[in-house]
Amino acid sequence: MRIGIDLGGTNIAAGLVDENQNITVRGSVRTPRGADDVVREMEALARSLCEQAGLRLQDITSAGIGSPGSIDTVAGTVIYANNLGFENVPLAGALAEALGIPVRIGNDANVAALGEFHAGAGKAFDSMVLVTLGTGVGGGIILGGKIYDGFNGMGGEIGHMVVKKDGAPCTCGRKGCWEAYASATGLIRLTKAALEKHPDSLMASIAEEMGRVSGRTAFRAARQGDAAGEEVVAEYLTYLACGAANLINLFQPAVLCFGGGVSHEGPYLIERLLPLVEDELYPVGEKKTALRLAELGNNAGIIGAALL
Amino acid sequence: MRIGIDLGGTNIAAGLVDENQNITVRGSVRTPRGADDVVREMEALARSLCEQAGLRLQDITSAGIGSPGSIDTVAGTVIYANNLGFENVPLAGALAEALGIPVRIGNDANVAALGEFHAGAGKAFDSMVLVTLGTGVGGGIILGGKIYDGFNGMGGEIGHMVVKKDGAPCTCGRKGCWEAYASATGLIRLTKAALEKHPDSLMASIAEEMGRVSGRTAFRAARQGDAAGEEVVAEYLTYLACGAANLINLFQPAVLCFGGGVSHEGPYLIERLLPLVEDELYPVGEKKTALRLAELGNNAGIIGAALL
Repeated sequence: MRIGIDLGGTNIAAGLVDENQNITVRGSVRTPRGADDVVREMEALARSLCEQAGLRLQDITSAGIGSPGSIDTVAGTVIYANNLGFENVPLAGALAEALGIPVRIGNDANVAALGEFHAGAGKAFDSMVLVTLGTGVGGGIILGGKIYDGFNGMGGEIGHMVVKKDGAPCTCGRKGCWEAYASATGLIRLTKAALEKHPDSLMASIAEEMGRVSGRTAFRAARQGDAAGEEVVAEYLTYLACGAANLINLFQPAVLCFGGGVSHEGPYLIERLLPLVEDELYPVGEKKTALRLAELGNNAGIIGAALL
Repeated sequence: MRIGIDLGGTNIAAGLVDENQNITVRGSVRTPRGADDVVREMEALARSLCEQAGLRLQDITSAGIGSPGSIDTVAGTVIYANNLGFENVPLAGALAEALGIPVRIGNDANVAALGEFHAGAGKAFDSMVLVTLGTGVGGGIILGGKIYDGFNGMGGEIGHMVVKKDGAPCTCGRKGCWEAYASATGLIRLTKAALEKHPDSLMASIAEEMGRVSGRTAFRAARQGDAAGEEVVAEYLTYLACGAANLINLFQPAVLCFGGGVSHEGPYLIERLLPLVEDELYPVGEKKTALRLAELGNNAGIIGAALL
């Protein structure tokens, strides 16, 4: 039995993960401010999970933490995590000391990819790139069953690949990153622009009814045959396909997997995306990268952390 | 001692490569038409190299072939190579039978990267992406000392990463590929456009004197302080930097290495490229990817093939 901890800016979620990659007990707490308090809450959560399962800490093989930000996986430190206010925090060592068991740490997006690969949509494949379509575009690259993150542990920033040079500004400082177009944020930007052009569309009524414009607004309208919604979805998908085809031409992973908010559009997303991607691929013969939806949702982070 | 064969559309170059990755004997012949004749010429070349070195084929550990096109490295076949007119040619098996020694085959760009990694600019590093700036943009990815080419052997098509969606048409069918801008062909296109705008520039005189526009025209003019040349070089470098930063954000290789015709601009190229790339990188702390020029030139293909 291992402990997996998904450290987020808002909540810390954790679970006991058995050898079949099932979460047997889970819990969560609000993320406190400050590294010391974060370690204390993670420790308390881990102890409480063990208690619920009737286990002692000695029965636990190891714990893993998925953390946002830049992580030095070898040293076990968070180099920099904006939304936790962390800079050079030796998080793994501190928790290992508190619990008396080995603790490893990884970047949350990479860790979720590891979970999804071993216990979710990647199970049947030998390599995977996970694309998480949320506020940003995150993800992780799994080669040989392990996270690929480069010589310095900072690789796999798939959202920060420019697909439209001199295009929309990205939070990273570049212009035209995939993230600026293919994230839910990018989709919302496209949706808002279309709403201004088409104030009488069905999409406009849907936005009004929902009380806000979200990543679902345009998809909902498009599924109901609204031309304005369809225009947004079609344009969004060309950007999604562009970056997806880039990743395939570079990595040729056995599976390219989509998670995060936008992936909740489900099979409709993959069915529409697939022909656009195939149209852009470098010719590769018969063995083609499969496109799949992520299966584990938020559990991927807990399971992946336990697998570190 | 191993044999490395660099099979090109025009010439077949081969060499005996010793355990220190030095080419001890070399030779080349024109590439004949037809797979049978190609195998016969490769066999004759290999036998002649051995003879020159006073070795018997039994003294040779193995041979390797770097071939253009799509290669099935496991089956040892060229799936498709446009400029050889090959389709499903079991090249490795045919040469192995002719020579009576094991023969492996790989894509020429990947094989050159392998050579450059083990015997050239990559020697001091633990991972590398090689970018070859020639007629196209080719290259290879070396992770863990080996070629990374995806689950189907078709990965590493770094030139066919779109950096300017809906941009200049690429030979692969996409629009806005890095290759369409960062190749010598892309540079020549930029140069020709600038020559039309600036017919009285120093660059125009240089082009006239050289008798044609090449990938060197704009660089030569820029080095002499010509504004038109500088404009072309500056724009070209923004594209080169854009794709380079993409590769670093994705792979974080220990070294990113530039070969091919445009790399003959030498240290000037790297000095001008470096600040542009650093400006675009995702923040990574102190361990940064090094930028280097390839060192082996055409020898990379022979040495890399011998290392397969």
